Amino acid sequence: MPRPSARALEPLVLGPEGLRILDQRQLPGTEAWVLATDAAEVAAAIRAMAVRGAPAIGIAAAYGAVLAARICWAEPGPARPCWDQALAELGAARPTAVNLAWALDRMRRVADQHGLDPREALEAEARGIHAEDRAQNVAMARLGAAYLAAGSRVLTHCNTGALATGGHGTALGVVRTAWSEGRIERVYATETRPWLQGARLTAWELAREGIPVTLVVDSAAAHLIERVGISWLLVGADRIAANGDVANKVGTLGLALVARTLGARVMVVAPSSTVDMATADGAAIPIEDRGGEEIWRATGAKAPPAGIAFTNPSFDVTPARLIDVLVTERGVIEAPDRTRMAALFHTALHEAD
Amino acid sequence: MPRPSARALEPLVLGPEGLRILDQRQLPGTEAWVLATDAAEVAAAIRAMAVRGAPAIGIAAAYGAVLAARICWAEPGPARPCWDQALAELGAARPTAVNLAWALDRMRRVADQHGLDPREALEAEARGIHAEDRAQNVAMARLGAAYLAAGSRVLTHCNTGALATGGHGTALGVVRTAWSEGRIERVYATETRPWLQGARLTAWELAREGIPVTLVVDSAAAHLIERVGISWLLVGADRIAANGDVANKVGTLGLALVARTLGARVMVVAPSSTVDMATADGAAIPIEDRGGEEIWRATGAKAPPAGIAFTNPSFDVTPARLIDVLVTERGVIEAPDRTRMAALFHTALHEAD
Repeated sequence: MPRPSARALEPLVLGPEGLRILDQRQLPGTEAWVLATDAAEVAAAIRAMAVRGAPAIGIAAAYGAVLAARICWAEPGPARPCWDQALAELGAARPTAVNLAWALDRMRRVADQHGLDPREALEAEARGIHAEDRAQNVAMARLGAAYLAAGSRVLTHCNTGALATGGHGTALGVVRTAWSEGRIERVYATETRPWLQGARLTAWELAREGIPVTLVVDSAAAHLIERVGISWLLVGADRIAANGDVANKVGTLGLALVARTLGARVMVVAPSSTVDMATADGAAIPIEDRGGEEIWRATGAKAPPAGIAFTNPSFDVTPARLIDVLVTERGVIEAPDRTRMAALFHTALHEAD
Repeated sequence: MPRPSARALEPLVLGPEGLRILDQRQLPGTEAWVLATDAAEVAAAIRAMAVRGAPAIGIAAAYGAVLAARICWAEPGPARPCWDQALAELGAARPTAVNLAWALDRMRRVADQHGLDPREALEAEARGIHAEDRAQNVAMARLGAAYLAAGSRVLTHCNTGALATGGHGTALGVVRTAWSEGRIERVYATETRPWLQGARLTAWELAREGIPVTLVVDSAAAHLIERVGISWLLVGADRIAANGDVANKVGTLGLALVARTLGARVMVVAPSSTVDMATADGAAIPIEDRGGEEIWRATGAKAPPAGIAFTNPSFDVTPARLIDVLVTERGVIEAPDRTRMAALFHTALHEAD
């Protein structure tokens, strides 16, 4: 099979007609694109998970703010209320990932500084957020890869690759760089229910680059760590609290507990835009529940029998004590805690309390 | 919705025309039946998981031996080699569940004792294995339920109910009895990838009896135990080694590790036919790998991209040290180990070594 073109890994492309979004729900079978022409359509794509992954959500939202600016400042009358409303809708699309709020805050500051017509400045800012994320991923990948011994077997969860970020990836960026340095023998990827980001996206991204990947059901991770000899669990993050607690794709908590018990180490890789020093600890992070339909449809049966309830948390919180290494573009924290987090992120402790 | 008829929970019915098997692959959407007319068709149904669950596999295999006897002893010439060959095929259908070999051994002993024409004796034995299993489940359910405090929230994995056994269920039998005694507030069921026995079978069985059930993806278990306050993990077993190690549906090991770490207790419920004193410990239990197709088909994409490998262990091994209570029809073992196992199963220690 010929490798897909490099363009396939540019899942967010801003053009004059709008934001083209590679529809991740249809991968790996189909490479379909969604064209969002205004902020509401970008918010809908984020809600429906046509685009997902905390950093990618932030970048998409920034581009959504550009689309809103194009519309609001083209019309007569005061543009800012129109634009603020669009940003509120974008900000509400997913509750857990903090990169979304972070990116929109950056866009608001630019609009504040270019009051009369901020359109050009906003587009430059959005493209800057995108380019920065890619550069940060490459920097993190180098830092994280240094922890992996030659020929390591690693386990990863969900998708943290080029599809989830501005490019290269967070945890999967570490995998890419470590592979190129001979540090990886094989990657084990969990399928990641209910959305199967591991099966549909991570395995696809790795296979197209020739990185050996084995796909397993989420439940097989403990058996695998024990029998195959996994040395590292590599994951991304959707929000990191001031004490180092990490909200990430549901299942991360269980994987981290199992990894630590069975002798593997745990590395979290995320840009500093994922760090939320205003949230004291993991208990304060809102966890999105996406409802039962996402779970039930795998059965192929029409409607669930009456009397079946569902809990479908999209994320869980891994306490800082289970994390061996937290990699950000600003540097690495081993055994993260409130003090070390504050030291790296230059924030006084009281701000987080 | 009206409750399905009680007949739906008699998944194995032997008649003159053959063995009618409720096709568990099509539940809960469709109640379809497979008619197996000889041992090869029973073996195929076991391999393809039209019938699954260690005790149910044993019962189905015993009925398969009856079908083989009907054919082999009806033909001229020596019947026993014909029948022995059929039993070999049945015995090879699934490698991990020891109930399969145990049931066939019972059938062989009966054939040995009724050389000339064992057909009637074999049918009586198979029906006896079925009835005994049901009675044992009720006995185990009483023993196990006594450990649950009033209003407990429990977590279960895979399907261990009437569909997996001769009736009532093992771990789910404990749930049924405990519910009738007011000991259960709600059951949390994992969907159990890749076959979704939890989503398709366990939730269906519980909902039809009005037992409150919440379905979650396998990965959500740790989050759930931590936030909802689960007191017990209740699971069945496919094989129990002489030291108390338990082979069960893949994911059990991870769930047990997580449960014990987060303060829930672990109960394994299985008839003594699941105990294999000839296998010293869990490392010696063969683990069936069912191949990648079972995992991949959930993506909806046709074939996996070249370069993706799969590991699909159907079972994993939970070490005895993680098990708080092992419930069998012969009695309960708390904190099982080699000595306690030998004491209950009346086997000298050296036999297991």
